[in-house]
Amino acid sequence: MSAPAYDDQNVFAKIMRGEIPSHKIYEDDKTLVIMDIMPRGDGHVLVIPKAPSRNILDIATEDLNAVMATAQKMARAVIKAFDADGTTVQQFSEPAGGQVVFHTHVHVIPRFEGVALRPHTGEMADDDVLAANAEKIRSALG
Amino acid sequence: MSAPAYDDQNVFAKIMRGEIPSHKIYEDDKTLVIMDIMPRGDGHVLVIPKAPSRNILDIATEDLNAVMATAQKMARAVIKAFDADGTTVQQFSEPAGGQVVFHTHVHVIPRFEGVALRPHTGEMADDDVLAANAEKIRSALG
Repeated sequence: MSAPAYDDQNVFAKIMRGEIPSHKIYEDDKTLVIMDIMPRGDGHVLVIPKAPSRNILDIATEDLNAVMATAQKMARAVIKAFDADGTTVQQFSEPAGGQVVFHTHVHVIPRFEGVALRPHTGEMADDDVLAANAEKIRSALG
Repeated sequence: MSAPAYDDQNVFAKIMRGEIPSHKIYEDDKTLVIMDIMPRGDGHVLVIPKAPSRNILDIATEDLNAVMATAQKMARAVIKAFDADGTTVQQFSEPAGGQVVFHTHVHVIPRFEGVALRPHTGEMADDDVLAANAEKIRSALG
């Protein structure tokens, strides 16, 4: 396969430019964390590098390292925020790999004993619920 | 939650000590890559840090960076080896998160248009098939 070039009209690029809203959890020089609006579990967040890249196939090493350092911070934070029992971390590359938005992102999902991941239905979560969960994670980070 | 301590009797620690066999794909100072013997897709590999850690919650930053650099190398290699259309990368922490072996590992799975991940049935793959797939990936790396 040869992957298409990065297209800056993707949703995460628009969020980073402030063109569409998001529930921001955390930000540093190289990464941004927002709530996934179609969560596969309560407290599902996305870690996004600020620099443009499409996925794991083209991301620069320093950006990948920054994303994973933030993902680790988020894994610890969501466990604290929700008293979770574990985490699932996922990264999808290209449509066959499960990727829907073509700016690199890593999913961090708090997990609970006996609770399966919800299927990816495309249904959006209630905005108030997302806002409340975002606040819980911010508090756990603080 | 408070995670149990690292236990060096896990399967990956035994593989690294040479106590049980594996299909090795790649090795560097900090990481080892082997075939998953219960693959969720053809060519499913595991990237394992050599240093002991349980999962993303306790792994040292330098080990996480090394694992992800190797995971990126593997993502590119499996796409080349199998002419795949994408990759799925997963990392599970604690039983609720989907973790079965309690030494940190990252799954890299080549993905193909229209082919779903196989369920985790616990069924072991044919050893000759694993050996052949391992050789394909080694060649793609070479």
